Amino acid sequence: MNLRKLLLTIAGGAALAAILVEPGLAQDAAEATEEVVEATGGGVPAESVYVFNTLLFLVTGFLVMFMAAGFAMLEAGMVRTKNVSMQCLKNIALYSVATIMFWIVGYNLMYDGVDGGFLGSFTPKMMPAPDADAGDYAAASDFFFQLVFCATTASIVSGTLAERIKLWPFLIFTVVLTGFFYPITGAWQWGGGWLAEMGFSDFAGSTIVHSVGGWAALSGALILGARRGKYAADGRVHPIPGSSMPLATLGTFILWLGWFGFNGGSQLALGSEADASSVARIFVNTNMAAAGGVVVAMILTQIIYKKVDLTMALNGALAGLVSITAEPLAPNLLMSVIIGGIGGIIVVVAVPLLDKLKIDDVVGAIPVHLIAGIWGTLAVVLTNSDASIGTQVIGIVAIGLFTFIASGIVWAILKAVVGIRVSEEEEALGLDMVEVGVEAYPEFGVGSQRV
Amino acid sequence: MNLRKLLLTIAGGAALAAILVEPGLAQDAAEATEEVVEATGGGVPAESVYVFNTLLFLVTGFLVMFMAAGFAMLEAGMVRTKNVSMQCLKNIALYSVATIMFWIVGYNLMYDGVDGGFLGSFTPKMMPAPDADAGDYAAASDFFFQLVFCATTASIVSGTLAERIKLWPFLIFTVVLTGFFYPITGAWQWGGGWLAEMGFSDFAGSTIVHSVGGWAALSGALILGARRGKYAADGRVHPIPGSSMPLATLGTFILWLGWFGFNGGSQLALGSEADASSVARIFVNTNMAAAGGVVVAMILTQIIYKKVDLTMALNGALAGLVSITAEPLAPNLLMSVIIGGIGGIIVVVAVPLLDKLKIDDVVGAIPVHLIAGIWGTLAVVLTNSDASIGTQVIGIVAIGLFTFIASGIVWAILKAVVGIRVSEEEEALGLDMVEVGVEAYPEFGVGSQRV
Amino acid sequence: MNLRKLLLTIAGGAALAAILVEPGLAQDAAEATEEVVEATGGGVPAESVYVFNTLLFLVTGFLVMFMAAGFAMLEAGMVRTKNVSMQCLKNIALYSVATIMFWIVGYNLMYDGVDGGFLGSFTPKMMPAPDADAGDYAAASDFFFQLVFCATTASIVSGTLAERIKLWPFLIFTVVLTGFFYPITGAWQWGGGWLAEMGFSDFAGSTIVHSVGGWAALSGALILGARRGKYAADGRVHPIPGSSMPLATLGTFILWLGWFGFNGGSQLALGSEADASSVARIFVNTNMAAAGGVVVAMILTQIIYKKVDLTMALNGALAGLVSITAEPLAPNLLMSVIIGGIGGIIVVVAVPLLDKLKIDDVVGAIPVHLIAGIWGTLAVVLTNSDASIGTQVIGIVAIGLFTFIASGIVWAILKAVVGIRVSEEEEALGLDMVEVGVEAYPEFGVGSQRV
Repeated sequence: MNLRKLLLTIAGGAALAAILVEPGLAQDAAEATEEVVEATGGGVPAESVYVFNTLLFLVTGFLVMFMAAGFAMLEAGMVRTKNVSMQCLKNIALYSVATIMFWIVGYNLMYDGVDGGFLGSFTPKMMPAPDADAGDYAAASDFFFQLVFCATTASIVSGTLAERIKLWPFLIFTVVLTGFFYPITGAWQWGGGWLAEMGFSDFAGSTIVHSVGGWAALSGALILGARRGKYAADGRVHPIPGSSMPLATLGTFILWLGWFGFNGGSQLALGSEADASSVARIFVNTNMAAAGGVVVAMILTQIIYKKVDLTMALNGALAGLVSITAEPLAPNLLMSVIIGGIGGIIVVVAVPLLDKLKIDDVVGAIPVHLIAGIWGTLAVVLTNSDASIGTQVIGIVAIGLFTFIASGIVWAILKAVVGIRVSEEEEALGLDMVEVGVEAYPEFGVGSQRV
Repeated sequence: MNLRKLLLTIAGGAALAAILVEPGLAQDAAEATEEVVEATGGGVPAESVYVFNTLLFLVTGFLVMFMAAGFAMLEAGMVRTKNVSMQCLKNIALYSVATIMFWIVGYNLMYDGVDGGFLGSFTPKMMPAPDADAGDYAAASDFFFQLVFCATTASIVSGTLAERIKLWPFLIFTVVLTGFFYPITGAWQWGGGWLAEMGFSDFAGSTIVHSVGGWAALSGALILGARRGKYAADGRVHPIPGSSMPLATLGTFILWLGWFGFNGGSQLALGSEADASSVARIFVNTNMAAAGGVVVAMILTQIIYKKVDLTMALNGALAGLVSITAEPLAPNLLMSVIIGGIGGIIVVVAVPLLDKLKIDDVVGAIPVHLIAGIWGTLAVVLTNSDASIGTQVIGIVAIGLFTFIASGIVWAILKAVVGIRVSEEEEALGLDMVEVGVEAYPEFGVGSQRV
Repeated sequence: MNLRKLLLTIAGGAALAAILVEPGLAQDAAEATEEVVEATGGGVPAESVYVFNTLLFLVTGFLVMFMAAGFAMLEAGMVRTKNVSMQCLKNIALYSVATIMFWIVGYNLMYDGVDGGFLGSFTPKMMPAPDADAGDYAAASDFFFQLVFCATTASIVSGTLAERIKLWPFLIFTVVLTGFFYPITGAWQWGGGWLAEMGFSDFAGSTIVHSVGGWAALSGALILGARRGKYAADGRVHPIPGSSMPLATLGTFILWLGWFGFNGGSQLALGSEADASSVARIFVNTNMAAAGGVVVAMILTQIIYKKVDLTMALNGALAGLVSITAEPLAPNLLMSVIIGGIGGIIVVVAVPLLDKLKIDDVVGAIPVHLIAGIWGTLAVVLTNSDASIGTQVIGIVAIGLFTFIASGIVWAILKAVVGIRVSEEEEALGLDMVEVGVEAYPEFGVGSQRV
């Protein structure tokens, strides 16, 4: 503010003075003044804005990248010993596949010339040139940030289908999801497509990332079927406890940490007082919603089960985070706690509900990412007056239908052509022996009997 | 410097020139020049300062937030298998409780209008409005940074009381600690209260955070009593080894990482050459002190026990970090190593000493956070000429007495009203079965006998 | 650009006007204008540049520091249960030793007045004064960043020699490596020594960090010998599986995360559009190369072994990262995938090759850091027209010979004087019992038989 005033004053003085000796200079000075005021956005010099925005993408991007480790640990902790190596492998593999597919196809499909339509460009050019100047941030920093979002979507699918899916069919699905399905529905909104034009609102991706991952996981779970022994013929549900609660807890904390990047970076700019304040507010609201999810899930499980279920508390945090993701900026702190707390309710209610429906979701990704993602997308209308419930529903349904059906078709084709499920014997042995060839804990538990 | 000179020169030229045509302009230009020089602090434009400071709070804040994961892993590794899920649950729960309590009560109690006194405002308003402009940083970023400090205090208590405390009484204590006790003594210093006026010096909280956590833990440990079997009737100490050293190591590394945020962010500003240099110096000193703690603890345990105790090395790092926290800026590198190294001595001496006193501190939090915290607060006078030993002692004693007594009262009330300790049978079974209902490692060790 | 134009215009106007009233002022204004244009580098004010650059060192520095945790987890996961505590201890100890040695000796030896020669200054002064102004960044931030690189070098050695080396001889070697050997060869290039003058190109240290660690590990492995039972008399290789694949996976993800700091921070500047864009491009290329390494290693192991070996996939990521480290800026994205993918091939080929040579490298550090480091250094010529293959080879050979021979001499002396290897019985018992006195998992596996 002061700098602007000073520059105008100086320029004014100089112009007035200069006009006495060289009229053309006065005009130059006035024009240049206009330019700098515009460029600085009222204080921060244009090039500093560029650096700040780029830095935001890089810092929040590496936080989101690290969410891949969070998913890996969460899932490694929630599956049985005999499938832990497989889950680790799937997570590092899917991140790598997403990196390559989003680069070759996805990024341009999502962002290149969507212009109100349904798709960007299909040209598999080796783009984007990472040193391109993308206006007020480095093109490569934006590419990195968008890429780690794409990878997150694929991570969600991995947990639901654990302990019975084959490695390579899963990775082929990941190729399609990260190269095509995620970028297509992403183009509708973040690429500036038809949903964006209609006024759909999904700040950091409750629907575009989390529900998409959830829908893909749900269609896979339906086609793949439940783990052997999970649902008895008499309708009873056999709990299959995860092998390591500290790893599941570590994974949840890493995801919580990463979510500051996920939501905070989605402000897409840092280089002004307004943007910096918004990022800060998003950090606080994100944290509030997660805390609300934990506390509500803990109280509910204490009331219902007379014990506090750790896995529900962990999923409560994640559901709170997913719930606030569609609008982490507008709510005040109380509202953030409430939105996240309802996420906690969703987890406690939906996890047993899925079991009633015999949908076997190993880590609870469908309640956390799909259902809480829908809730979060609807909740936008509570705090954001620009959003309409009708448009939110259209977005949720359109993206959901597309992803669910398209994913289902791919799963069905994979099932028919190569098979997606290991045999009964292989499932009993565990995927680590069968598909990975490396036991996760060769000296412990079941494994130790072989040493 | 150069920019300042230029602006003054230009403004001077413009003013002199302008005076010929419009005398009022000259005065405007001179005033504006003063303003900009003041606002930029000699180089960085005011709005950039705002962005830099906010960014510092956010980046160092997420590092401190991740310390919650560090404590969770450290504690999960230091307790027996049968209590690991409980420790994980307590850590994610206390962080969530701290988030909510510090928001509803704590923040205003600590910072709102303390003004040389003992307390801030008790109004449980839904504050702070996170988009408020707090001068030269976003209010929300400061709130986030202060919040994660409050949570750290609660994390310290969790480890000491592990393996025998009930979940809900612990969380009720956390409510009081994070909503009231921590903010009250925090108000005395960081809120601008009576200790600050007296000249007490505690840069990042050796006393205000770490000793407070340590005093609360100590009073709890005394009232709760030791774990069954830890101290035999004949005075012998029965060591109870932790279940996972790699998790304890991971936790320590995460805490070390987080401490760059803890101490570095406490500079509270980044937007000038002086502030950036100070943050950098704090990073280096923090790292030096931790290394000093490790090396000294290793050499001492090698000499005393003929082996290097890993847990002592880990706690040596943490004690070194706590020791440098009260003054991470003023010492040179040698002094930082020495201050941290004395932290390492404290750990090696105090851990067996506590056992002699039959104070059962499961993770060594009292030596690390309380005793090294006192040492660090006293050590300020070695390098900071503004600090006086008398005032440091007054601060340590006043905060210690308040926290120890107030915590003791709450623990005693909880013990009388709801009970704070599980039964002997429950302790033998482990808290995971009894209170959490989720075994940490169902396929390993003790758990595997049930599979 | 705009700001520059404005300042020039204003100054011009002011100068012209001022010349009418005070000729001296005009000259002052013109000179000051030159200064500011130079100082701002065309847009970002000089002091903001200082803050940005310092911030880059601090943020990327803490990422690299956290790589110590990554190595600790990777190695803890790749050794047997009975040696896990030892591996944890070695990693926190070596980081601490590196901190102290690089401060007392290494930093000045590497950077102080090398000037085309072979060594910096040997004066063990308590330097650097961390608040020194080092031009356009804080001296302490640079010291921190260089220090964590030095520690990384030592981490590499730790994994190869696991499960049979004694603690203190290893740490004495670490003293020499981090205080002398790494800084000496570092001085040749990054200190501005003879290799730099010759035009050797190694952006972030494929050779200077990774190969140096690899050469030191190789010479140690040759002198130390293989673990008992690894190589049978009949030439068969007995695989010794690691104790925890999720920890190895976590370690790999942490290293991947840290590498954004390792390569990104090596740009050494952030405070301009060009520098920010370069850092962003480096992030993307680094990520691409790692993904390439994973995918290639997976496909190759599937083809060769009919299963996807998780440890090969993890090492594929790391080899991809090492490969791109010598030149992470110049390649385009396709080239980055290829360079990293060849790293993946190296791992799959070289791991069994080392076993044929009976060189026992517990974690695969020699293929990953030494061989992929050589490849990465050679690959610079593919994308960087300033680099010549001859000079690259000279650098690789000179640094390799020096490190391999000097390390070998130290290992040989240590072997002769104090012994570097535990006895057969101690190796069978495991180093945790013998040297650390703390079992890693006292309730699991082998350990549980003693509880």
